[in-house]
Amino acid sequence: MKILVINPVGTDVWNESDKKIYESFASGDTKIDVVSLEDGPISIETRYSEAIAVPKIVELALELHEEYDAIIVNCCADPAVDVLRTLLDKPVIGPCEASLALASLLGKKLAIVTVSKTGIPIFEELVLKYKFDKLVTSIRAIELSVPEIDKDLGRTKALLIKECKKAEEEGADVVLLGCIGFAGLAKEIEQEVGIPVIDPAGVAIKVAEALVSLGLMHSRKRYFG
Amino acid sequence: MKILVINPVGTDVWNESDKKIYESFASGDTKIDVVSLEDGPISIETRYSEAIAVPKIVELALELHEEYDAIIVNCCADPAVDVLRTLLDKPVIGPCEASLALASLLGKKLAIVTVSKTGIPIFEELVLKYKFDKLVTSIRAIELSVPEIDKDLGRTKALLIKECKKAEEEGADVVLLGCIGFAGLAKEIEQEVGIPVIDPAGVAIKVAEALVSLGLMHSRKRYFG
Amino acid sequence: MKILVINPVGTDVWNESDKKIYESFASGDTKIDVVSLEDGPISIETRYSEAIAVPKIVELALELHEEYDAIIVNCCADPAVDVLRTLLDKPVIGPCEASLALASLLGKKLAIVTVSKTGIPIFEELVLKYKFDKLVTSIRAIELSVPEIDKDLGRTKALLIKECKKAEEEGADVVLLGCIGFAGLAKEIEQEVGIPVIDPAGVAIKVAEALVSLGLMHSRKRYFG
Amino acid sequence: MKILVINPVGTDVWNESDKKIYESFASGDTKIDVVSLEDGPISIETRYSEAIAVPKIVELALELHEEYDAIIVNCCADPAVDVLRTLLDKPVIGPCEASLALASLLGKKLAIVTVSKTGIPIFEELVLKYKFDKLVTSIRAIELSVPEIDKDLGRTKALLIKECKKAEEEGADVVLLGCIGFAGLAKEIEQEVGIPVIDPAGVAIKVAEALVSLGLMHSRKRYFG
Amino acid sequence: MKILVINPVGTDVWNESDKKIYESFASGDTKIDVVSLEDGPISIETRYSEAIAVPKIVELALELHEEYDAIIVNCCADPAVDVLRTLLDKPVIGPCEASLALASLLGKKLAIVTVSKTGIPIFEELVLKYKFDKLVTSIRAIELSVPEIDKDLGRTKALLIKECKKAEEEGADVVLLGCIGFAGLAKEIEQEVGIPVIDPAGVAIKVAEALVSLGLMHSRKRYFG
Amino acid sequence: MKILVINPVGTDVWNESDKKIYESFASGDTKIDVVSLEDGPISIETRYSEAIAVPKIVELALELHEEYDAIIVNCCADPAVDVLRTLLDKPVIGPCEASLALASLLGKKLAIVTVSKTGIPIFEELVLKYKFDKLVTSIRAIELSVPEIDKDLGRTKALLIKECKKAEEEGADVVLLGCIGFAGLAKEIEQEVGIPVIDPAGVAIKVAEALVSLGLMHSRKRYFG
Repeated sequence: MKILVINPVGTDVWNESDKKIYESFASGDTKIDVVSLEDGPISIETRYSEAIAVPKIVELALELHEEYDAIIVNCCADPAVDVLRTLLDKPVIGPCEASLALASLLGKKLAIVTVSKTGIPIFEELVLKYKFDKLVTSIRAIELSVPEIDKDLGRTKALLIKECKKAEEEGADVVLLGCIGFAGLAKEIEQEVGIPVIDPAGVAIKVAEALVSLGLMHSRKRYFG
Repeated sequence: MKILVINPVGTDVWNESDKKIYESFASGDTKIDVVSLEDGPISIETRYSEAIAVPKIVELALELHEEYDAIIVNCCADPAVDVLRTLLDKPVIGPCEASLALASLLGKKLAIVTVSKTGIPIFEELVLKYKFDKLVTSIRAIELSVPEIDKDLGRTKALLIKECKKAEEEGADVVLLGCIGFAGLAKEIEQEVGIPVIDPAGVAIKVAEALVSLGLMHSRKRYFG
Repeated sequence: MKILVINPVGTDVWNESDKKIYESFASGDTKIDVVSLEDGPISIETRYSEAIAVPKIVELALELHEEYDAIIVNCCADPAVDVLRTLLDKPVIGPCEASLALASLLGKKLAIVTVSKTGIPIFEELVLKYKFDKLVTSIRAIELSVPEIDKDLGRTKALLIKECKKAEEEGADVVLLGCIGFAGLAKEIEQEVGIPVIDPAGVAIKVAEALVSLGLMHSRKRYFG
Repeated sequence: MKILVINPVGTDVWNESDKKIYESFASGDTKIDVVSLEDGPISIETRYSEAIAVPKIVELALELHEEYDAIIVNCCADPAVDVLRTLLDKPVIGPCEASLALASLLGKKLAIVTVSKTGIPIFEELVLKYKFDKLVTSIRAIELSVPEIDKDLGRTKALLIKECKKAEEEGADVVLLGCIGFAGLAKEIEQEVGIPVIDPAGVAIKVAEALVSLGLMHSRKRYFG
Repeated sequence: MKILVINPVGTDVWNESDKKIYESFASGDTKIDVVSLEDGPISIETRYSEAIAVPKIVELALELHEEYDAIIVNCCADPAVDVLRTLLDKPVIGPCEASLALASLLGKKLAIVTVSKTGIPIFEELVLKYKFDKLVTSIRAIELSVPEIDKDLGRTKALLIKECKKAEEEGADVVLLGCIGFAGLAKEIEQEVGIPVIDPAGVAIKVAEALVSLGLMHSRKRYFG
Repeated sequence: MKILVINPVGTDVWNESDKKIYESFASGDTKIDVVSLEDGPISIETRYSEAIAVPKIVELALELHEEYDAIIVNCCADPAVDVLRTLLDKPVIGPCEASLALASLLGKKLAIVTVSKTGIPIFEELVLKYKFDKLVTSIRAIELSVPEIDKDLGRTKALLIKECKKAEEEGADVVLLGCIGFAGLAKEIEQEVGIPVIDPAGVAIKVAEALVSLGLMHSRKRYFG
């Protein structure tokens, strides 16, 4: 099975490390390629950067998809996922949507912890669109920007633990890490927080593998092109 | 007051007639300019055509907005409206969102009648995003494409009357015309259907005028740029 | 255009000042008359005072409506609005309902700030009736009675700013002033709070003007008489 | 225990028969008095007739309540019930609200069958106010007016059976008779329809007795006077 | 009328005191028998103890039901209630469901206060199943286990008052005591808290009496056996 | 990886064929054992048979779980799944819950098609408990009993196609086969119906594999033992 991971940003600095993270979760016989946009935003943290990125993600996917069994868009805002589904007859995975689906099997009060506060309305709208608003009981932010995540990983983890604990105190029984930049950190956070913590990259690859091996694809009735 | 109407399509064939329709609803002292994209889709009926159009709408709005008091994006999918709100400190109006708001003052079981069936999931998602899903009780389509609307206006009206009546039988107490291509037809339809029928262009211009004269603008807390 | 504003109270002491506030928001060619009940409650802060006032509002409206294009009931509990709609074939505006509709275009987490705590269940029921409960995320009170509002306007504003800020901290992205006695204060409050603050009188008159000029009226299917 | 039943109409023609129906459901030691308004509407089928009746119901209740343990307002629109709760420290029962509560113990898909179609929006609003909209899955009408119910009781029953069966086909597992004029007919209808049919008068008196004997009363926090 | 109360525990130590509590609420002509399981859990505080108890409750009910008019399962998790309804043609009462129904007539923001925090998800699921999630606004726990309730009744009352007050501060206008072990304490708590407090045993017996005397039973369409 | 599949019935006639179906979906390195209850119901189609089976499923799982990485309860009513989660620190999968989660990634209007009409309320309650009621838009039945499924597989398929098509006409964009007896039939049905059809066994095994390989387990905060 071959999975294409599209980094919806105009830089390839994360491609190699993202590939390693995805491979750490993938089955032995899954081959993963990570590509990024030729030019595009540095990160998707605003509606504007997302709007700019979407047509470029589509273009790249249309160019490359043929030799892949499924596509993951490597960002928790799930940019271009719906559009790609209207154009392609193979699974297209958004890490946020996939995390919500899997988390719904672990608990019934889900929290999303993302990077900056300004992303909260965007996640609120995703949750409404996915009809998961009864399951999601809090959306919180650690108040960093995406480029700051890597600068001081200790600080990032400490902030994540703090916000995940607050979400737990508010009632959450499962936490979703709401930024692909947090990929690889879930297990460490989980040990401190005491409730399941979902890694968006891990879930995305497992859902992709499951759909491909079940021969399942999105409904073309909903995603009409 | 000056209002910019952006036709999110790559043709100017409708600009003149749209300007007339908008002026027919506007106050005497409101000046309206209608512009269209240099290149862009012929109509916005799929998620793909919308994705392509959005950055171009943004670009055009950023270029022209300075001499206007408000911007209307002339399409009932409200493309680029949220993005523009994160970039501009003046009202940005989407005809669908404006129609829903005003319709909620006339009844409490709203129907949307749009062009093609494939647009129904897109309206469902808009309605969820706007948190109007309790108010909207049916979404129907006349099963034409946008370019077909003008070809045989008699047929278009007949189909609209038929679907509006079905919506009424399903319980609706107000109908929204869910395509800007239907602008100007509401009154005629209303007479046949017997419940209020909302013209998206008429509502858009009136809401724009109201917000400008009240000095009100979208919340930058929600539409953060 | 002529608009009738009915003060649902048994005193005319506010008629003149209310007229000025409404005129400050109205278009140049809109003529406004403000009338009050011959006898009636001093204010509408309980279900009892509302029940007493409703038939008197109806009686007065039936007597005067003929020379007007629309009627505004000048109270944020929207007393008699639904009843009048079953009796009259012209727009009847409730400031609360109108504020909710317009606010839904500015943000998606609306707060209402009203006078006394005992009014909170009444607003909760209005919000349910209008099917806006997904949009309204908090209802707060400044803990004054209506007659106290004017006594010390500085204190009133300070209390409003305090409660609007609390609503904002709870997540609200737009605030509605939930008492017509707060008319004229919105802009000042908005500057302190940093999110849009809606003036109920301003919105009521603009919505009345919009409906009249669009030739739109409530659905007689819903408001059957 | 003494229960006051207020007929919210300006005629006493039904007082005696209503007394008998209530007594047929009451416990042996419950004394029931039925009174009607001195002047008032013939029936409550519109928002206007309800608005007119409410202050008169309140006045009568305030005059008579002292020697009673609880008050039932004998109409399924539950007129004046909320207002009376803000004024009195004893149970005030609305037959619609009481029927909904008891019906929720018998099934989870409740239907209301009322007299005329124009009453449907009024029941929809009651159901929203009572927060029972998830439980109520259909509201239907037999298309008679209240005064017609008694004229041809055979026709009334036949129409009730027809509409109750339609509600059952739509999924309902319990039916509420949504007009006090249907009191006494539930058992006969139930035998034809095959799912429980709730008599509004029967439930009202049993709920009144239960609340009085448990020493329970509405929350004065919600019904503040 | 004869009512069977089944204590879903493997001990008869509470049977006598429970009988007294139920009789204190019952009508003079209601005869009450309280029985418990031959072997079973000490209390139902986990999903496991409930799963073990359910078939034993069913067995006992099937054995004894014939000489009774209705059955109450004496536990606020309402164990086996739905199953029994599919097997028996007489009212089967769960104290939680009955309390929710009656509480909905006293206020519209209901709180449940139960014993241990681990029971909260179980009540959340009951509330969803009963479709009362709009009415229930908080579920709290006093953090005792069932056997601890009786050990120091003063402490139990103090903890109940504390949690009921917190629920009231969160907005609740009615409180339900969410453990049958709290039966008999409601009035005392109510005096301290200032909003209605519902006794689950009191409500259960009154609802049983009402249903029996009205000849009403659960819908066999929903509870099919 | 070793997965235990528990057939919650008192017969082993299906164990071998179920093992084959599960293996047809499983990864190469997943080992599957299928066991059934020593004594138990023939099928789980009523609340009573489920209540009887649950303690036996628990007992069997407690006895066998140690050498397995995850447990699947092989019935779409998901019997004992929640209880087992409170007792075991490894994934416990219910085919219905797993199907709902995965289906939410393929469409947003899910239909469940099950065996007999009497199971519909049980699925309604599952959907409410899982907080998927916004996603599930219809629940239909083919009107066979479980033992009849295998008798005439051609008839079963024809009935499934008929009901799936009706669900699609009602708006569904994805269908879940709501009985484990339908396992293995999804692809054939899907080809006739034109929207994705979910096989409960296929999804259950893939979700089990995904959770095990991600090291994820249900929240012990929710499933407290």
